[in-house]
Amino acid sequence: MDIRKCSAEAIGTFWLSFAGCGSAVIAAAFPQVGIGLVGVSLAFGLTVVTMAYAIGHISGCHLNPAVTCGLAAGGRFPAHDIAPYVTSQVIGGVIGAAVLYAIASGAPDFDLAKGFAANGYGEHSPGRYGLLSCLLAEVVLTMMFLFVIMGATHGKAPVGFAPLAIGLCLTLVHLVGIPVTNLSVNPARSTGPALFAGGWAIAQLWLFWVAPVLGGVLGGILYRWLSEQPSAQITGMVPPAPAE
Amino acid sequence: MDIRKCSAEAIGTFWLSFAGCGSAVIAAAFPQVGIGLVGVSLAFGLTVVTMAYAIGHISGCHLNPAVTCGLAAGGRFPAHDIAPYVTSQVIGGVIGAAVLYAIASGAPDFDLAKGFAANGYGEHSPGRYGLLSCLLAEVVLTMMFLFVIMGATHGKAPVGFAPLAIGLCLTLVHLVGIPVTNLSVNPARSTGPALFAGGWAIAQLWLFWVAPVLGGVLGGILYRWLSEQPSAQITGMVPPAPAE
Amino acid sequence: MDIRKCSAEAIGTFWLSFAGCGSAVIAAAFPQVGIGLVGVSLAFGLTVVTMAYAIGHISGCHLNPAVTCGLAAGGRFPAHDIAPYVTSQVIGGVIGAAVLYAIASGAPDFDLAKGFAANGYGEHSPGRYGLLSCLLAEVVLTMMFLFVIMGATHGKAPVGFAPLAIGLCLTLVHLVGIPVTNLSVNPARSTGPALFAGGWAIAQLWLFWVAPVLGGVLGGILYRWLSEQPSAQITGMVPPAPAE
Amino acid sequence: MDIRKCSAEAIGTFWLSFAGCGSAVIAAAFPQVGIGLVGVSLAFGLTVVTMAYAIGHISGCHLNPAVTCGLAAGGRFPAHDIAPYVTSQVIGGVIGAAVLYAIASGAPDFDLAKGFAANGYGEHSPGRYGLLSCLLAEVVLTMMFLFVIMGATHGKAPVGFAPLAIGLCLTLVHLVGIPVTNLSVNPARSTGPALFAGGWAIAQLWLFWVAPVLGGVLGGILYRWLSEQPSAQITGMVPPAPAE
Repeated sequence: MDIRKCSAEAIGTFWLSFAGCGSAVIAAAFPQVGIGLVGVSLAFGLTVVTMAYAIGHISGCHLNPAVTCGLAAGGRFPAHDIAPYVTSQVIGGVIGAAVLYAIASGAPDFDLAKGFAANGYGEHSPGRYGLLSCLLAEVVLTMMFLFVIMGATHGKAPVGFAPLAIGLCLTLVHLVGIPVTNLSVNPARSTGPALFAGGWAIAQLWLFWVAPVLGGVLGGILYRWLSEQPSAQITGMVPPAPAE
Repeated sequence: MDIRKCSAEAIGTFWLSFAGCGSAVIAAAFPQVGIGLVGVSLAFGLTVVTMAYAIGHISGCHLNPAVTCGLAAGGRFPAHDIAPYVTSQVIGGVIGAAVLYAIASGAPDFDLAKGFAANGYGEHSPGRYGLLSCLLAEVVLTMMFLFVIMGATHGKAPVGFAPLAIGLCLTLVHLVGIPVTNLSVNPARSTGPALFAGGWAIAQLWLFWVAPVLGGVLGGILYRWLSEQPSAQITGMVPPAPAE
Repeated sequence: MDIRKCSAEAIGTFWLSFAGCGSAVIAAAFPQVGIGLVGVSLAFGLTVVTMAYAIGHISGCHLNPAVTCGLAAGGRFPAHDIAPYVTSQVIGGVIGAAVLYAIASGAPDFDLAKGFAANGYGEHSPGRYGLLSCLLAEVVLTMMFLFVIMGATHGKAPVGFAPLAIGLCLTLVHLVGIPVTNLSVNPARSTGPALFAGGWAIAQLWLFWVAPVLGGVLGGILYRWLSEQPSAQITGMVPPAPAE
Repeated sequence: MDIRKCSAEAIGTFWLSFAGCGSAVIAAAFPQVGIGLVGVSLAFGLTVVTMAYAIGHISGCHLNPAVTCGLAAGGRFPAHDIAPYVTSQVIGGVIGAAVLYAIASGAPDFDLAKGFAANGYGEHSPGRYGLLSCLLAEVVLTMMFLFVIMGATHGKAPVGFAPLAIGLCLTLVHLVGIPVTNLSVNPARSTGPALFAGGWAIAQLWLFWVAPVLGGVLGGILYRWLSEQPSAQITGMVPPAPAE
């Protein structure tokens, strides 16, 4: 247990859960000028962009058990640190949901029955997607999220841009997947709101632990496999033009 | 008093107040193709992105009394410079609102009674949020804004990206909080429009000085506390992959 | 054939096809809070931003036969590698559409007859644009896309920013052209959905191979011509200000 | 006359005019999923982001007579190069409008009388803003645009980020000002569509030469004045934290 790293993960996941879910609960469907799903997607992504620049140098800024497990599977994170990281993330996610509840419940039309940004499948999927579609979406989106994380933090990737690439990847997966499951790809983000929404949200929470962690591990393994393949020299966009 | 720095803060805060509030007053609810709250959030964030690249090397580009106080609390800014910075920011914010008034009042359907982008709580909250919710939202959002500012400008954060991280953080807090208080997190931005809107806007202005400054100080202290915690070596996303 | 590069191109084009088209099929027209064409444009662009940081150092991250051909025409890519790259891209694009089909078909209101994000002209153009308009739009937009790619990856362009410039250029061409052809500029992205939509989509697929490849080649040649023109020294925005 | 630089300015301004105005004409008001003013603002900004990375190292990427004049006033551009730059920009802007016309006129509901993205004041202002409001808006927004350009390309600003700061500043000024004048801040962008819209658009074109150039010159002078003020050492956000 490393106090600084674990505190950073808890604070960062608080931010992801509070501000990401907060944009959905408070602003998405605001009459006439609401931010819609594009605003919610941007908000989730920016929680990671901002925190990755703020605490990336402290804890690596995972903010997500699926990221922590995926990086471990990809050989980038020590397995014995998974437990304290994941614990810190869940604590942060729950506190984020609690603070959001304290604020959002101050509106006259607040209603927990609207879902409080919890994730769901089947009849609780925003677009009524079936369980298999929801499972597949969460696995594939988390897998590719980890693939991008592994690549953008690789030693040969441009220095300093990883937080942008990773945060904007979270925006991207939300742009695709909110109608399917309200989008998780992050068990800590799912756990917080589920505790407040209760009932079906808790009953369906298992999927948003199983699918993202499975997807994350697959993504870590996929990138590791790719980077170990034989290759000739690098070609294409990146090399500079011949001198003039 | 440093003329160059104070002028830069005044010009920058003019920009934040004029263009941020201007997007809300002029374009947010434009019929059919209006930019909505997502456009307003982007506009506020981009005032900081653009100015931080333009004058960051001159004054640090605070543009916000809560930022100046928070950085002082975090040990990054000398206390004796708070007064001239805050004064310059307020002057800039008021001029920004005045120029916006001159432009916006040239539209046939202009009406100060729509609020002129002033901040409010209770019956003057866009979503009718109660005082406690508004207070909590402003404190938490400003606290996290300062936390990100402290982190992104830390010596170990990637060089050159702080303006993006900080400006996009301002976009993020707007994506969450406009329905609550019309979002301040910045007393100088709140003061300008309040002077023109008058009445309730001035009567409620105290909250948008107290809450952001309190939140900013808490954020500066939180990051300082975090960075002083003991830690082992850095792990996670950031370290380069092993050589292949 | 280079396994690592070809695998990277296939995975990256899978991502472009799956997530780009996925945002259109799943989220664009979601009731009340749908992401609209601005969200779809952002999604397509972010598939390239994220992959260019993740695999740019492996394969150059073309993800697009028009890019591969354009870079070859511009003297940046060896002609004998075109075939394996294009083959990998098409495979990735088709798998992306297949996985999207598996997920999207789990919604109760899913209907392939809505087009499944396939590209079209004439009566299958979203805005009923005629063939010549569609041809011209695809040629010009792909030409300028390649022009930007060639320029942003030039040895004198700022290091590390090319993925942002290129991905955001893809967002830009979508912001302009979705109503015209549903926007291709990428034969691999067009082929995947067409195979599932069938009928008219396959009958019209030829245009989305011919026009983007032609445009890409023109763009590569245009930039190459430009960079070979005589010039005096560099002036304008870029040079630093005189010392103070 | 420098062929390479002038060609780059013409191509770049073609892009700004074609893609910026194209997003407005083709996609802004597309039924149900149109990109709205937020999409148009993003499109204009991204034309500059993409071109600044592609040709910034060739011509400085002004793409705008107001920028060229403003940089000259700010001491960053030689006065004897203004004429060839501005001429190239206008040629590019007109060709951009012509190609846009060729594409857009292929839609069954195309109607030049909708304005073809031309700029206007009074009864031709989108929001019916009076002449003085329109003049003031164009002057202030162009002035601040130049201020940001001067600052972001200053020798002490972070290297490589100027294209982002400048392009996103163009997005920002559009987020504020489209309802006022349809937003110009660029005489070359205004001239192209006006030639096609004809009538009132040509009669009102003078304003969109006078106001942006005046604003640009004021912005160049303002930043120059600021950077010549006396100052103590730099403080605030930028300096690294003390070693731990």
